[in-house]
Order: sequence, then C-alpha cells, then structure tokens
Amino acid sequence: MIMIADISDGRQRAVIENLTPNVDAGRFPVKRSLGEQLVAEATVFADGHDHLGVVLQYRHAETADWQETPMQALGNDRWRGAFAVDRIGTWHYTVTAWVDDFSTWRYELSRREQADDIALALLSGAELMEQAASRAAGEHRDRLSGWATALRADTALEDRTALALSDAVADTMARYPDRRLATRYFREYRVVVDRERARFSTWYELFPRSCIPGSDTHGTFDDCKGRLAEIAAMGFDIIYLPPIHPIGHTNRKGRNNTLVAEPGDPGSPWAIGSEAGGHKAVHPDLGSLESFRGFVDSARGLGMEVALDIAFQCSPDHPYVKEHPQWFRRRPDGSVQYAENPPKKYQDIYPIYFETDDWQALWEELKSVFEFWIEQGVLVFRVDNPHTKPFAFWEWLITEIRQQHPEVLFLAEAFARPSIMYRLAKLGFTQSYTYFTWRNTRWEITHYLSELTRTEVREFFRPNFWPNTPDILHEYLQFGSRPAFMTRLVLASTLAANYGIYGPAYELQEREPREFGSEEYLNSEKYEVRRWDTGRAESLRDFISRVNHIRRDHPALQQDLNLEFYPVDNEQIICYGKWNEDRTDIIIGLVNLDPYHRQSGWVELPLETLDIDSHHPYQMHDLLTGARYLWNGARNYVELDPQGAQAHIFHLLRRVRTERDFEYFF
Amino acid sequence: MIMIADISDGRQRAVIENLTPNVDAGRFPVKRSLGEQLVAEATVFADGHDHLGVVLQYRHAETADWQETPMQALGNDRWRGAFAVDRIGTWHYTVTAWVDDFSTWRYELSRREQADDIALALLSGAELMEQAASRAAGEHRDRLSGWATALRADTALEDRTALALSDAVADTMARYPDRRLATRYFREYRVVVDRERARFSTWYELFPRSCIPGSDTHGTFDDCKGRLAEIAAMGFDIIYLPPIHPIGHTNRKGRNNTLVAEPGDPGSPWAIGSEAGGHKAVHPDLGSLESFRGFVDSARGLGMEVALDIAFQCSPDHPYVKEHPQWFRRRPDGSVQYAENPPKKYQDIYPIYFETDDWQALWEELKSVFEFWIEQGVLVFRVDNPHTKPFAFWEWLITEIRQQHPEVLFLAEAFARPSIMYRLAKLGFTQSYTYFTWRNTRWEITHYLSELTRTEVREFFRPNFWPNTPDILHEYLQFGSRPAFMTRLVLASTLAANYGIYGPAYELQEREPREFGSEEYLNSEKYEVRRWDTGRAESLRDFISRVNHIRRDHPALQQDLNLEFYPVDNEQIICYGKWNEDRTDIIIGLVNLDPYHRQSGWVELPLETLDIDSHHPYQMHDLLTGARYLWNGARNYVELDPQGAQAHIFHLLRRVRTERDFEYFF
Repeated sequence: MIMIADISDGRQRAVIENLTPNVDAGRFPVKRSLGEQLVAEATVFADGHDHLGVVLQYRHAETADWQETPMQALGNDRWRGAFAVDRIGTWHYTVTAWVDDFSTWRYELSRREQADDIALALLSGAELMEQAASRAAGEHRDRLSGWATALRADTALEDRTALALSDAVADTMARYPDRRLATRYFREYRVVVDRERARFSTWYELFPRSCIPGSDTHGTFDDCKGRLAEIAAMGFDIIYLPPIHPIGHTNRKGRNNTLVAEPGDPGSPWAIGSEAGGHKAVHPDLGSLESFRGFVDSARGLGMEVALDIAFQCSPDHPYVKEHPQWFRRRPDGSVQYAENPPKKYQDIYPIYFETDDWQALWEELKSVFEFWIEQGVLVFRVDNPHTKPFAFWEWLITEIRQQHPEVLFLAEAFARPSIMYRLAKLGFTQSYTYFTWRNTRWEITHYLSELTRTEVREFFRPNFWPNTPDILHEYLQFGSRPAFMTRLVLASTLAANYGIYGPAYELQEREPREFGSEEYLNSEKYEVRRWDTGRAESLRDFISRVNHIRRDHPALQQDLNLEFYPVDNEQIICYGKWNEDRTDIIIGLVNLDPYHRQSGWVELPLETLDIDSHHPYQMHDLLTGARYLWNGARNYVELDPQGAQAHIFHLLRRVRTERDFEYFF
Repeated sequence: MIMIADISDGRQRAVIENLTPNVDAGRFPVKRSLGEQLVAEATVFADGHDHLGVVLQYRHAETADWQETPMQALGNDRWRGAFAVDRIGTWHYTVTAWVDDFSTWRYELSRREQADDIALALLSGAELMEQAASRAAGEHRDRLSGWATALRADTALEDRTALALSDAVADTMARYPDRRLATRYFREYRVVVDRERARFSTWYELFPRSCIPGSDTHGTFDDCKGRLAEIAAMGFDIIYLPPIHPIGHTNRKGRNNTLVAEPGDPGSPWAIGSEAGGHKAVHPDLGSLESFRGFVDSARGLGMEVALDIAFQCSPDHPYVKEHPQWFRRRPDGSVQYAENPPKKYQDIYPIYFETDDWQALWEELKSVFEFWIEQGVLVFRVDNPHTKPFAFWEWLITEIRQQHPEVLFLAEAFARPSIMYRLAKLGFTQSYTYFTWRNTRWEITHYLSELTRTEVREFFRPNFWPNTPDILHEYLQFGSRPAFMTRLVLASTLAANYGIYGPAYELQEREPREFGSEEYLNSEKYEVRRWDTGRAESLRDFISRVNHIRRDHPALQQDLNLEFYPVDNEQIICYGKWNEDRTDIIIGLVNLDPYHRQSGWVELPLETLDIDSHHPYQMHDLLTGARYLWNGARNYVELDPQGAQAHIFHLLRRVRTERDFEYFF
C-alpha cells in the first residue's frame, strides 16, 4: 500500500500551496466584517502542461454545505478568488484544484495542424463529452451526448472542429468537470466575520461621575443621559465608560494618585469592589442597575452603544477576596500578594492569581461577568490590561462568548511589546489600542501605518487610534496647543477607521501634566470628580463634529486596508490617500505636523494608480472647509497654517468638466 | 470541562510563536548538511513581566529521546538556539518554554528596598528552593535544602540576601526548573540532514560514448576509466553520465536532431529501451554491468562519485511497452500516445501514463530502478524533467529511497516556473538546476542570488549552477569567446557551492550553435559520438583546475547561505563576499561581466561587517594568480581585462603586519 503525504490517490496531480490570507498557517482566524469580501489567493499547478480547474470553497461554520467560486489565474501559478462574507461568525475556506482534461484537449486541438491528428483528437474529445454526459442530467446530458455523436460523424473535419471549439461546448463542459482526482488544500483556514462597527467606530470616553457640565457634583447615569444628544451630534457611536463598579475603601488612592485619600475622595474606578459588590454591581453613587440600563437604552436611541471597561483586578474589599481566597496569591506571612513592580507597590489592588489550582472555576466566574453585562444590553467591552492575564484565558473566553453572541466586540487595552499586542488580536480581540499616541513624526507615522496595513498584521489586527486617554497626555499635546489637538484628531480619525478620544479633556484641550516630563494629567479624573465646562467657546466640538461627519459620509475612511503615503518635499507635512474597494471614493489627507509654524511644500500624487488623467485638471474638495482647488498633474503646491487650515481632508474628484465635455465641442 | 486550543492546562502561560526555520509551516522539512548547525528562532513571551525559561528540543528520527539546548533572548521576545546536525537523516525540533519563578523572584529581590519586603521575599525564595530540592537528587538536593534553611535562619538580612543572589544558587536552581506548566510549540518541524556532498559538489558531465580523446570511436566504460585521473585532477568530485541504457531503434533521431537516423547513428541516450533491456540495463556498446561497476569503483578510488541520469520515458522498443501496456496511454485508434506538444511530436519517445489505474505497480517498478542502481554503487541521481511526472510520485519515491539510503542525493533537472522548481526541492530533491544559465547581467545575477539566499528559498533549495549543458549553449558563450567561459565558470563556481559543467564542451569552449538564435549545440553529442581533443592547448583545463582547488581550500565557497553583493560604480563588474560560519575564511569575488573590453571601477566594501579596521590596510590575495594587493579603507580601485585577469577570487586577510605589531614598537 502506497502512502502519500496529504492526498489519497497518487493520481491527484494538482498541487496547491500558500493559500492566503491566513494567520500563523491557520492557527488563528483572519478577520473581516460585513460588507467586505474574503479575497483568497493560492499557488496552484500540476506536472506537465495540462490545464487546471481551481475553485475557492467556503462555508459558514453553522452550515454544513460548502459553496464554491472559480479562481482566476494571475500568472506565475498564482490564482485568485473571492466571496462576500455576508453573515457574522466564523467561516471556513480552502481550495480545490484538478487537471482539466477537456480544457487541455481543447487548447491542443486548436494548435493541431494535420488532418489525421485532428480526426483522432475529435474522437478523444467525443470520449470526454460522453464521460461528461454521464455526470450531467436532463437537457445537458442529451446535449453532450449529441455533441459526442456529432464529433464522431462522417461530416467535414472543419465543421466538427468548429463545433468542438465552440463556446457552447466549452461552457457546458465546464459545468461537468471530472473531479474524481481533484486535490484539496491540506488545511482549512478560518475567517471571523464581525458586524460593521468592528471595522468602523468612533469612541467617546467619559467618566460618568464627571458628566454634569460645569459642575463637580458626582454625576449619575441619569445625569449622563443629559450629555448623550450632544455626543451623538458630534458623530460618536460608542460611549465608553471606565469601570462603573463599587470602589474599594482599603488603601484608596487620593487626588493626583496620592497614597492616602482624603475624606470624600471618590477613589480610582479601577480599584474594583466593596461591600456593595464586585464586577457585576454598579457603584451606588452612579445609580442602580436599572438606571444603567436606561442609560444604555437612551444611547441606543441616539444610534450609540455603551462600551464597558472590564478590568480583572480587585480592591481588598472585593467580595471575591473573602468568597474565593484561593483566587489570590498568598505571601509566606499569609497576607494577600498585592500588585507590585518592585520597588513600586499598589496596595489598593489585588491581582487575580491565575495559576490557582481552582483556575477552571475562576475562568467560568470571569466569563459570567461578561455574560452579566451582555444581559444588561452591553455588546462592546474595552478590556483593561489583558496582557497581564494568561493569553489562553482570553482565547477561551472570547471564543466562548462569541459562540453565543457573535455580535460582541472586544477592544484590547494593551500597551506592550508588539508580539504581545499582536497575540491578543490573533486570539480574538476585535480591536486593539496601538502605539499611535507616541507616533508623531512623519517617519514614525508612515512606518507604523505601513506595518499595520501592508504586512500580515492587516489580517488580524484592527487598530483603534487614541490621541489621548486618561493615562496618556502626550508631550505633543502638552506643548502644541489647539493646532496640535487638531492635527492629532485628523490623523487618528482619517488614518484609522476606528478611533476614539478621552472626550471632555480632548474637546477642551486639557493639557497640564501632573509634573514636567509626565504623561499623566494634572488633577486626573481617575482620582477625582472633574468639572468640565464643555460649553466653552474654545471647545473643539465643532471641529470634531465636522471630522466625524466626513467619516460617516466617506467609505474610504471606514476601512483600514487601502492606504498609501505620498511624497511631500517638506518633512513637516504628511500626505496619504485612502479609498474604498471599488475606488469610487478617494480621500487625500494632508496634515501639518508642526503645530507652531506655517508649512508649505510640493505634494506628488501617483496619477496613474489614482486613475487621474494627467492632461486634465482634477478637483480637490476640502471637506473640512468646503474649499475647492483645481490641481493639475502630479505635483501641486500646498500650504498649511496653524492659524488657519492645519489640515485638509480632500475628496478627490477625478474628472473636472471642460468645454470638451459638452456636445457642441464635437 | 474547559477546552483550550493547543494546551492542556489553562495555567500554561508561556506562548510560543513563529518558530523558524520552517518550510510551509512544517509541511516540508528544512535542509541542512553535516558540518552545519540548525539555528532556530522563536517568539516567546508570557502575560505579565515574569521571566521565562526557553529550550530548543531536538531528536534524530531514529532516536526516541529528545535532547535540548537553552535558547537566548535576542530582544523583542525573539529567542535563538542552535544544535549541530551531526547525523544524516531526518531530525525533529520544537520549542518548550515556561515561566521561571526563581529567575523572576531573584530579579525582584535585587530591586527590593525595604527590609520587611526583603525578609518576606527570602521566605518565598526558601519555598522555591525546597520545591527545587524535591526535583533534585544527591548532592544538589542537599545543597538546595541547606540554602532554603539558611534563607530562613535568623542571620543578618544582608548575608541571606547575598546568598540568595549568589551565582552558585542561580546555577543550581537553573538545573531544576518547575516545568509542570511548560508550553510546547504546537508543531514539530523537521530538518533533513544530508552528507556534505549535498552542500558542496563539483560536477563533470560526460557522454561515455565520446570518452576517447581525439577519437570518434564509440567509447566504453573501460575507455572512460582512461579520463578519470585527469578529471579528478581538475578537482571534480562527481562524474555525471547521461542515460547509459540501451537506445531504441524505432523513430531513432539522426545527427542534429534530424527525424530519420542514418545507419550507424547511435541515437539519443534519452530514447531509452530496446530488446537489450530498459532502465535497469546497460547499453551493450558501453560494456557490461560489470564494467560499469568497475568504472564506478575506479572513480571512487579517485575520490569521485558517478551520478546517473534517470529519465522516466521509453522508446517504443522498451520492454515496458509490451510487458505493461497499461502504463502507456492509448489513442482512440489503439496506438500509444507518443510525447507531443502540438503541433510538435516526439515519436521516438513514449511518456509514461501516470494516471493509469495500475499506478501503484508503476510507482513500485520505478522505485526499483533507483534501487537497482544503488545496488551497483550509484548514490547520486540526476533526474530528467521531474516536473513532467506527478509531484506526489517524487515525494513518495525520494522519501522511500532515503529511508533505506539516506546518503543518496537527487538533482532535479527542471527548467520550469519558479513554483514548480521550488516544489521539487521542497518535496525532497537534494539539489536543483536553476536559471543561472540565463542570468548574465549584474542586475540579473544579484536579484536571482538574493532570491536564492536571502528568502525562505534558502531553507530548502540547493542551487546547482551550470554555465552550459548539452541542451543549453547560452548566447553569452556563443559570442563571448574564451573570456566569457572564464567569467561564467568563476561565477558558477564561487556563487554556488554546487556547480557543474558539461565537461569536454566547456574545456574546449565549444560555441557553435546549431543555427543562429538557437541555444542548441551544432553536432550535438546527444545524437552522435563526438571527438574531443581534450589535450588542445587552448583548453581551459588549467583554469578550471585552479578554480576547483580554490573551492576545495576555502570553506567560504563550500556553502550558499553567507553571500553579500557589494557596490561597484561600473555595472560591468560584479563584486560579492562569501564567508564561512565563524568568518575565519572570507572570499571576495570580482568578475568582469564584459567578455570584450577592459573594465575598471571603484569597489566599496562594508568594512564594519567584514570586521576590517578602517585605519589599517588589509591584504587581498588573488587566489587565481597569486598576486597580493594592499587595500585601504572602504573604496578601492579595480581593473579587469579579458586579455589578462578577467576575474579575481580574493582571499581577504584582515590584518596586515605593521611596525606596530613588533614588540620594539611599544
């Protein structure tokens, strides 16, 4: 008995290699979202010179039947096919290929010259048609049998050859290939399909306790409703709340992260748990579970979703500490091991001990936290520091949750080394925090975005760009003033389809660090209720609103995969293009990276790839100001000014009417 | 029950990704040879900040026990380890990693500042040492227990800390890590290890029937023995013979590939089989099987091996045609389908019909052909057109043969599209023909060699460079005269560790094509007995001999993986460096690609990577002429002349003595 790697019959001659896309050779699924296609390629060939049939096969995980679509040869043995991922959940895909005897025969017949050869070849063709007839039924079977007979008839060779080479014969034969010796690729790959908001979302982070404009009274969910209309009008579709659970008392942090809280200090929302409950409870000062649900409903009524922050760590007062002492690591003196990074200590937080013998019960309980909030209507979770919990835990948890609730989205808040951030995305996180906050120069931005969109990272990692967070106030914003905030907002919102801001602080351009050289905010909202005068005249509200509405109107900005950077002869200006799949929408971003000075330079656009006629002017419509510019040829002059237009978001209109467009011109 | 991808316990926190090298994620083995190492890298990390232990594990396929060697962190979560592949056959390798509690603890202890913390940490350390003691035995167990006790003793904190941080403790603890929760990479990869000649070989192709110098009498194996000493003296170690089997009579080709042979025409050796036998027989005109064995023995006595050409195709007179009619495809008129590429026909050859229902018997018979010649002492096979037979067949055949005879080498003679040539190498061919013959300009050579040596191709494809073959007389040689032959010989022999020439024609610079624009030789030896006056004065014998002896003396030229091209400001000059693994041998090749004119230019060497002191001169010793040049700094002038030195093969001597090297200087 002959044993052969991968195949069952030594006559399976087609070879299939290097099916893409895939993540780690199929260990993890590729990511796509509704409205997209899965475009697959494979290297397919056989020995000799025979022609091949190649199909891309796919099925939704909940469907038993495979569908298929033909793949087309691209040259050099590479083939491409595509299918629309029109249902959320997991899909499987693979490739099948076979030697296509009829196509080979037809091609050879067309090159034969001698009458003897042709006559003999027609007999071979008749055999192939009879075999195909036996695989067909009804009308097709009759037609194929009839052609086989005609090819054998005693009629003129030219007529029989013409019939044999006809399109009708080719089309019918193509329906009944002999696939008994077809080869199937040795792996099936997976694509996880999310709803559209996984690909395109606009986040607004808000501490609910500081939600009363112009007041430092502790706000409630009911108070928060008051801000919803305004945030929705700005074009955000996800309201993200830091943890809303009871906050511990033991070792509570004071304002500006001081070690001892003053009476009345509210503590950090990340010190989760008190006698009032843990991860499934709502902080009494914010209201009841019912009022939270009301808040979620109100947001939904305005087209927004609420995202919750899930931080798996406990204050010493968390009910878990008493109920499940085995979930916390003990020190030799019997005390619980608090979080630390020697010599630093975080006595207000106990990390969960994932190496506990009781890990299975722990995992199930943590999963139930997500299930609890899903029941309350939450479908988006921002996970705090997932990289400090085992990767296997997240892979299991996300897989489990999404099996029941494939519409749930997970954002990984990890600022760690690249391999760690990528692993979290591979194992299932829908979106990911990034290094964007620290990428400010043109080289840094170009290099980073190229890594995210031009390497295999694009298949599994969906960046979510944040110009600020409650933890990160970058120097660029500290020193750059209002133009810096505009620059970073335009970059985040047009370079990434998913972006977010730590809202009130960004609108009001809050930029005082706790101390010189620090990236922390002075009077950080993490440790106190803040008063936000969101109605102030200098608010960026209108600018943010404008940008978000441009995003809503332009599919080019609702995806990450089509992005290219264009040369500008001034390092302080960055220029890039984005477009939707069928290139009906092209956006050109032009941003001044210098928040202090006017910058100008010559931009060079690749007319050919943008499909612009080099002999015609084209129109650049600035969606930020409404201004329209006529550009001509590849190189055009631009000028950006912190005191005026710090950025352009151009809609490129390829065709400008001229007199030649009118009938009378001809 | 919690089910987790890849791991058995949710507490296995280490993650291992992207183990390299591998070919198609382990579908095929990597190739190495005796004298080399397998240097593996993997991305390894865990949640949080704990330290890791990482080992590379490996075993020969015929050994049950795994060996292991520690991997070292390279930064950014990448780890590297290596093992010597000191036995031919297949090896397996993978990676295991675990969270190293002791190393983490030790690092944290070194950063603790408060006495309370340190005291508590020492107790934790004592626990770790006791656990390690339980895994140890004898002296080590006692020592570890003793240290645990000492750490708990009522002695000065400083003394106990010093003990805890001592090298003795660290070294002993490192021997007994707690690996119960270790993670093993989810795949095992394979490396096939060949004997050295797979990596470094020098081929001489010879038609045995034309082996009598200065005569056109049909030669025999006994006659061929007469040329062996001379070929060995030129430095070749493989004599490759085109098929030595009986040649068919039916439709035998005449001289210069004419359709009708004249009486006495010997026919093409590739039209295999007659009443005298098939693939296991020797052409009666060449002698007996015994004389063939004698020839093999004589070659071996001179340090050379005989390589046979295996071409699986049959003359109409081959015994298989009668004995196994089902192995040949029939046409509708009952005749056997001869080889064709419409409208071209090759009536002297019947291809084997691999889609026969009797394919298993066919495969076994073809395998027995190799076994037969292995029994006659042949361990090297050049396989003719393997890409016109099913890939699965070769994968099975080579695997089967090498299971019994891991010393056997297979050279794939395929000139086909890249994916096809690479597939043959992946599935098991030891060495491969290449596009080298058609790569003549600097851009072409640089680009092609970069693909072969700088991409994953390097892991499985061993190029064998042929400046000519009986089928290919490139235009460069037709028009380039003697300097062209020198240039191409130096390039083939120094760019690839495996190279070969179609011997007599190359020595004598045979360069007449059959017709203008053809790549075929006039009066090709394929169709007639040729008279070779190998003793002629203009023979390249001495030059070839010189080059081959340089190859023998220099390990840098006995490998393909370390190669870099260096800039020269003249496109007609190519410059490159090769070095052995420990960089004790560095060769710089400098070749004039213009066979007509003198060319000069400035070469730029990367002094830093070559470890050359930029303040000292260094010596370039031309191994072709013996001349020595003192070079200085990165840029140096070179001049190459078709009438003189058309190439340099420099041995780089990094250090030239100066007066400062003598003691009296100080």
